Amino acid sequence: MTARVLVVDDVLHNVKLLEAKLRSEYFDVLTAMNGVDALKIIEAEHPDIILLDVMMPGMDGFEVCRRVKENPTISHIPIIMVTALDQPKDRITGLEAGADDFLTKPIQDLPLFARVKSLVRLKVLMDELRVRDSTGKAFAGDAALDGSASIKLDDAKVLVIEDYERVANRISGYLEDTAAQIDLDDAESGEITTSNLDQYDLFIISLSLRQADGLRLCSMIRSSEITRHTPILVLIDDGDNDRLIQAMEIGVTDYVNRPIDGNELVARVKSQIRHKRFADYLRGKMQKNMEMAVTDSVTNLYNRHFLSTHLDNIFSSENEKPTNVSLLMLDIDFFKIVNDTYGHASGDEVLEEFSKRISSNMRSIDLVARYGGEEFTVIMPETDAEFALFIAERLRRTICDKPFEISGSAEPINITVSIGASIVSEECNTKEKLLAAADKGLYKAKETGRNKVCNISFP
Amino acid sequence: MTARVLVVDDVLHNVKLLEAKLRSEYFDVLTAMNGVDALKIIEAEHPDIILLDVMMPGMDGFEVCRRVKENPTISHIPIIMVTALDQPKDRITGLEAGADDFLTKPIQDLPLFARVKSLVRLKVLMDELRVRDSTGKAFAGDAALDGSASIKLDDAKVLVIEDYERVANRISGYLEDTAAQIDLDDAESGEITTSNLDQYDLFIISLSLRQADGLRLCSMIRSSEITRHTPILVLIDDGDNDRLIQAMEIGVTDYVNRPIDGNELVARVKSQIRHKRFADYLRGKMQKNMEMAVTDSVTNLYNRHFLSTHLDNIFSSENEKPTNVSLLMLDIDFFKIVNDTYGHASGDEVLEEFSKRISSNMRSIDLVARYGGEEFTVIMPETDAEFALFIAERLRRTICDKPFEISGSAEPINITVSIGASIVSEECNTKEKLLAAADKGLYKAKETGRNKVCNISFP
Repeated sequence: MTARVLVVDDVLHNVKLLEAKLRSEYFDVLTAMNGVDALKIIEAEHPDIILLDVMMPGMDGFEVCRRVKENPTISHIPIIMVTALDQPKDRITGLEAGADDFLTKPIQDLPLFARVKSLVRLKVLMDELRVRDSTGKAFAGDAALDGSASIKLDDAKVLVIEDYERVANRISGYLEDTAAQIDLDDAESGEITTSNLDQYDLFIISLSLRQADGLRLCSMIRSSEITRHTPILVLIDDGDNDRLIQAMEIGVTDYVNRPIDGNELVARVKSQIRHKRFADYLRGKMQKNMEMAVTDSVTNLYNRHFLSTHLDNIFSSENEKPTNVSLLMLDIDFFKIVNDTYGHASGDEVLEEFSKRISSNMRSIDLVARYGGEEFTVIMPETDAEFALFIAERLRRTICDKPFEISGSAEPINITVSIGASIVSEECNTKEKLLAAADKGLYKAKETGRNKVCNISFP
Repeated sequence: MTARVLVVDDVLHNVKLLEAKLRSEYFDVLTAMNGVDALKIIEAEHPDIILLDVMMPGMDGFEVCRRVKENPTISHIPIIMVTALDQPKDRITGLEAGADDFLTKPIQDLPLFARVKSLVRLKVLMDELRVRDSTGKAFAGDAALDGSASIKLDDAKVLVIEDYERVANRISGYLEDTAAQIDLDDAESGEITTSNLDQYDLFIISLSLRQADGLRLCSMIRSSEITRHTPILVLIDDGDNDRLIQAMEIGVTDYVNRPIDGNELVARVKSQIRHKRFADYLRGKMQKNMEMAVTDSVTNLYNRHFLSTHLDNIFSSENEKPTNVSLLMLDIDFFKIVNDTYGHASGDEVLEEFSKRISSNMRSIDLVARYGGEEFTVIMPETDAEFALFIAERLRRTICDKPFEISGSAEPINITVSIGASIVSEECNTKEKLLAAADKGLYKAKETGRNKVCNISFP
């Protein structure tokens, strides 16, 4: 996957060299020669990835990085810090400033493309999850977490697959302060023997295993649905370029050369776990939004929008003509008085308890929704008129038979419900007609004394 | 990116050969030797991609394909049909059965990996968008579109970048019945000169342009935000493997060898447009769900959940202490009577008009939400007590000064609103206290005659 890369370096020769390398692999390249210009370009052009030199006069790379990560409109853009080989501390400082990865000068092709491609792959996925509002901004309330910098690394779990016990133990030692749980697996059987692989935040896999093919293990982790998104960091002999290329091709997320530099390992492990947790956060948020879009937050029943879509499906021309579909419209009697007398909190308690009683009296094929306010709707497939009235009557009784306990009143209060029923028929053959017929029944129930079930359209 | 591939073929030698090829590139491979077994494995294992032989005794490949695409729980899995070289019609039949791509026997490595990787890349993105409910099923109502087969290809727009006029015209001829609009660009300046590139469903790009580097054009399309997700099909000389590999690396979606086979081109174009439109549909749905999750469907105002999150942010410890934040709680007087007298449709009209009048009287920094039923909330930052009461009074008048037109009544009806106001202070320093204080003001307004503004907590 190609991408638009911004190269930031104060030395023209370095800029030109990186630009040529990247363009030869068909990346789209932007350049800046100081921090101030870089920030301007980032804000205007939104590159996919930033290669950022640390040592620059005026505003240095760390400061540029910090400013990018503090700005919610650009903080999602991954940054690779370019550090000098003899300044290992710069990596830590860079990651603390929010950088996503780092490269060491002089920059070699393979690490360059491996790092860039891995981050671009991640960014493409993240961009799909980062839904924006109509003006292109991230939704309010997410700003604090929009960017991975503020993600917590508590309770991180890492599985290390390495059959040299001494190395495995050394890795555990390095990660002591980073991960809460470090499990070891020697893959002696040729396979991963650890179970519950979905619990891990990161797999560290040796590509020099004696009994197993490390790349094969990586491939299995990547192709399994439960570990597809878990980052993999491989340990690889310096210079083993063929395997490194294969590893990146499979979808390995990161690598550390042997002999292992403890500081680098810790920095990379932190960065990978942070990326993973941010992605999990975005996925969870999307899932939650999806559910919220169809759910009423007070009662946890389906909302009116979902009810409407469901009815559209029932009457959709692609399906067979619906038969024996009944609908009940329920309205809590004198609900306004509950709110006015005992307060909204008590009103909500009545709505919750009411919803529970109704739901527990329905079959799994029925659909219960909050139509709005104190009105509820039940759709019952495979239900004829007689059975619909029987169910409606049972619902009416389940409400009035037992008073409702609310926090606003020492004594439980009496609640009743009026119910209108309708059924799909030759005449009653659209969503609107079915709802209107139930509404008429409900109106009649209200008019003639409440706490009763009425129907208008029944044959 | 690796993946779990199911190979289906009735000839053991073919199965073994494909398995070996795929395993050598570290794909995870499942195999089946007839259609019935294949369907069982697909349902149980949910592979990422299916390589499906057409010619099998018993249930042939077309039938397997049809059954997969008809089953909503597996229809999202891409299928590559494997056809005989001398049966070009099979490609059309396969695509009509819902196949996503096809390969010709004998299968060569490069086309195999190019096709598989391109579809896996697409599937990984689609999987992110296909949010499921808690039971793992796709959300109800999407079943009809869950799978790309039913996506419509109407009004497809294609841009062909080819500087051999004769070839460009021939391509236009082939696509006459497939695309509604076919634009040509000869990239004579070395760049794409066509504007509004975001309108296209597909780019067809020659890799033998005389003035421009076709791969560079592909890279630019891929790295631009507006065309990032638009498929690219390249035209490439048969055997030009280096460029094909580079093209796939850049993220080109599909290719056709020269000399161009019209049937193959049409089949691939249809398939790419269908994929693109399905992805657009999923993205649009996610966007809509995101908006719905924070919006009240009747009034289009923010909903109570969003209001609550917004207040949490205001009082969050990470922000400075809020000062001069005022809150109004509005409740339409005697709204129940409107519903009971004129029906729910008229009630909704009142809510809509009410929302419009309130919103149009607020600043862009204020937040208006529907708290529930006929209750609304306004949050006003940078607003002191005096100004808050001024605004509240203006809102009260904008409601009572002009009667509301509703469909349930020939005469416009009079509507009034009671308003309680509160303001953040040393004592009133939590979400709950701020809401409760406004609630008390609202209660006092109701108690003392309605159609008025009251406050309790103001200094």
